[in-house]
Amino acid sequence: MEKKIIKKAISAPAFLNEPIEYNKSFSRGIKIALGDVTLLEISGTASVNEKGVTHAPGDFAAQVKRTFDNITALLKSENASWYDVVRTRCYIKDIKQHYGEFNTYRNKFYKELNLGPFPASIAIQAHLCRPELLVEIEATAIL
Amino acid sequence: MEKKIIKKAISAPAFLNEPIEYNKSFSRGIKIALGDVTLLEISGTASVNEKGVTHAPGDFAAQVKRTFDNITALLKSENASWYDVVRTRCYIKDIKQHYGEFNTYRNKFYKELNLGPFPASIAIQAHLCRPELLVEIEATAIL
Amino acid sequence: MEKKIIKKAISAPAFLNEPIEYNKSFSRGIKIALGDVTLLEISGTASVNEKGVTHAPGDFAAQVKRTFDNITALLKSENASWYDVVRTRCYIKDIKQHYGEFNTYRNKFYKELNLGPFPASIAIQAHLCRPELLVEIEATAIL
Repeated sequence: MEKKIIKKAISAPAFLNEPIEYNKSFSRGIKIALGDVTLLEISGTASVNEKGVTHAPGDFAAQVKRTFDNITALLKSENASWYDVVRTRCYIKDIKQHYGEFNTYRNKFYKELNLGPFPASIAIQAHLCRPELLVEIEATAIL
Repeated sequence: MEKKIIKKAISAPAFLNEPIEYNKSFSRGIKIALGDVTLLEISGTASVNEKGVTHAPGDFAAQVKRTFDNITALLKSENASWYDVVRTRCYIKDIKQHYGEFNTYRNKFYKELNLGPFPASIAIQAHLCRPELLVEIEATAIL
Repeated sequence: MEKKIIKKAISAPAFLNEPIEYNKSFSRGIKIALGDVTLLEISGTASVNEKGVTHAPGDFAAQVKRTFDNITALLKSENASWYDVVRTRCYIKDIKQHYGEFNTYRNKFYKELNLGPFPASIAIQAHLCRPELLVEIEATAIL
């Protein structure tokens, strides 16, 4: 059996730093090249900046924007875009309070991209790895 | 590199409506055709009916049945079945109260299908996007 | 279209028992052979022993070790290792109390394996299927 798999870490250092810098052993994403098909597994991504600091604690609108922007940057680093995303998982710290605002932003963001078909998705409530993080999204892209 | 990827939205409008009808930008599922292999990514699916209304608020047994039926319908729309499902994720609003009942139903449901090997799975407790939803399941199928 | 998909259940009975023995309809993992590429979908895995009993209730350090060891055994049963893992999802019952300890263990574990690139990952807080379970991890490997 001929092995064709090439794996590499995905990063977008102008947008968000490497987790190992704050002593966390995961990659921002992994690219898996499988011959004709490439899979991008984007880690749980939140409102973290290029220094590893939480961007906009307490401000849901700013956090959700930064989260989408960080994922965009990770996709772009591999010449991919939201058109390649097939699934997202969305974790919201207070879903009762913020799910409406989350959807308003996502609707606008996808509409500006003229995205379709929309990715498969789920949204659940969850406390995240830092208490001040209000939203986190992971994504899988296939290109 | 020859591109062979075809993506389309999955829907089963006789069972559950389109999220965009209630202003949510996601698909009920995505079919990704990769040459010889087809991947179905089924979104988080709950007890929602063809009008987008929650089916059986407060009734866990009826909700879990509807959830499995909705996923069955999404699979069937692409000529797939539970035999093709390789992974599920199960989110239960009150896992202490309802995990037993969830398993009783799933055992019976898979037994009637004579399913095997069983999909990989996880069950965690989570509050879902509507407060009256008691269970939600997402699934990945490969065919 | 030539079908090349072979699916089988993954198990590591010396480490953790089969869920069906305690009446749960899921597999510890599924191997999906897709021609040149093999996908391993490892179920949510916790500190459960070969008899299906929770290992080390109340002891986070022992539970996280057992969880990683159980996944290692499941990978090994298919001649795979942590080098093949592309994504993990980590569920911690009390993330405020235990996320630091989780990372200390994971850092050490991956360092001893000289692992790189690190898998994509997420950690969220969640109550798990047994109240005494403090951590659960699921993994996807591609080889």
